[in-house]
Amino acid sequence: MSDRPTPVDPPELHQSPAFAQGMIAPAGRTLYVGGQNGTDGSGALLDGLEAQTEQALRNVLAVLAAAGTGPEHVVKLTIHLATGVDPGAAYAATRSVWGDRRTAVTVLAVTPARSGALVEIEAVAAVPEG
Amino acid sequence: MSDRPTPVDPPELHQSPAFAQGMIAPAGRTLYVGGQNGTDGSGALLDGLEAQTEQALRNVLAVLAAAGTGPEHVVKLTIHLATGVDPGAAYAATRSVWGDRRTAVTVLAVTPARSGALVEIEAVAAVPEG
Amino acid sequence: MSDRPTPVDPPELHQSPAFAQGMIAPAGRTLYVGGQNGTDGSGALLDGLEAQTEQALRNVLAVLAAAGTGPEHVVKLTIHLATGVDPGAAYAATRSVWGDRRTAVTVLAVTPARSGALVEIEAVAAVPEG
Repeated sequence: MSDRPTPVDPPELHQSPAFAQGMIAPAGRTLYVGGQNGTDGSGALLDGLEAQTEQALRNVLAVLAAAGTGPEHVVKLTIHLATGVDPGAAYAATRSVWGDRRTAVTVLAVTPARSGALVEIEAVAAVPEG
Repeated sequence: MSDRPTPVDPPELHQSPAFAQGMIAPAGRTLYVGGQNGTDGSGALLDGLEAQTEQALRNVLAVLAAAGTGPEHVVKLTIHLATGVDPGAAYAATRSVWGDRRTAVTVLAVTPARSGALVEIEAVAAVPEG
Repeated sequence: MSDRPTPVDPPELHQSPAFAQGMIAPAGRTLYVGGQNGTDGSGALLDGLEAQTEQALRNVLAVLAAAGTGPEHVVKLTIHLATGVDPGAAYAATRSVWGDRRTAVTVLAVTPARSGALVEIEAVAAVPEG
């Protein structure tokens, strides 16, 4: 179905169950989701990596839904972890919200600008017509 | 007007006067502006955070203009601050050049590759037809 | 040729032989290549900056090829270097694989999530029709 992004996984690269090596977005509109921290509707940060990661992804999903798209149209996630955060623990925390959908991903250890933020997640998604 | 990017601000997320939670780019051409430091036309870095931030944004605006687009078509800014830079001071410094236009934004503390650079700003913008 | 990305280099900015200040992607499909480390087909990291950089770029090229596109359609490279890596050495190491093609680039010093990774490279490319 040409309306859906297409994963790209060349056979000569290591295959991962967690992400695609590349994603092709179909022609059309594109949603850019700015970096989401694990903040609630009042702007307050939740406590701890697991709660922040889940909330950051829920915020991403809320922006996707408000734009008329959804996680199956995401072509790139960039996950910024605060320095010292265990990437394995962060990945585990994504599963309950994100499930096992595969998309192109970059994971980096940086310092989110917001004090106390342990994770900041941004996304790019295709916006289907209709 | 379908030619303009559309901000996306779901009601369940914290609302910010400074940025949109997401931006939808219309179908069409897309400009990618590589990371801009606060350098002048000779490539020399200006002095201090305020001067560098203003100049980096002026450089972004120059690339937008040369591509036939402008700040009202920007769908994403990624603002990389050198570790230790106060995000509030950097934000204040953007205002004189960028004004109060809202777009999707990620702000991170990293180390720009260029020695002495306090800020590096990249952008994605829709390019209108015509 | 409207099918190829167009470099944007405003005369008032410093001109670089190594990168374009901006790149315009034509309308159409877009490939997002997730962050590539210098890993071989078994997922093992190669040794040292030069080998990792070359391999990371070969991985990017493999994803481009599998998507039906190529380096001449790349509109943005984001090169994440581990803190302490010399950007000049990393740039030199790109030349044997990437050549002197110019595209929009951001280079940052961060910590790739993968332990031992000295470089992580992501890309955005237009996908030509046909």
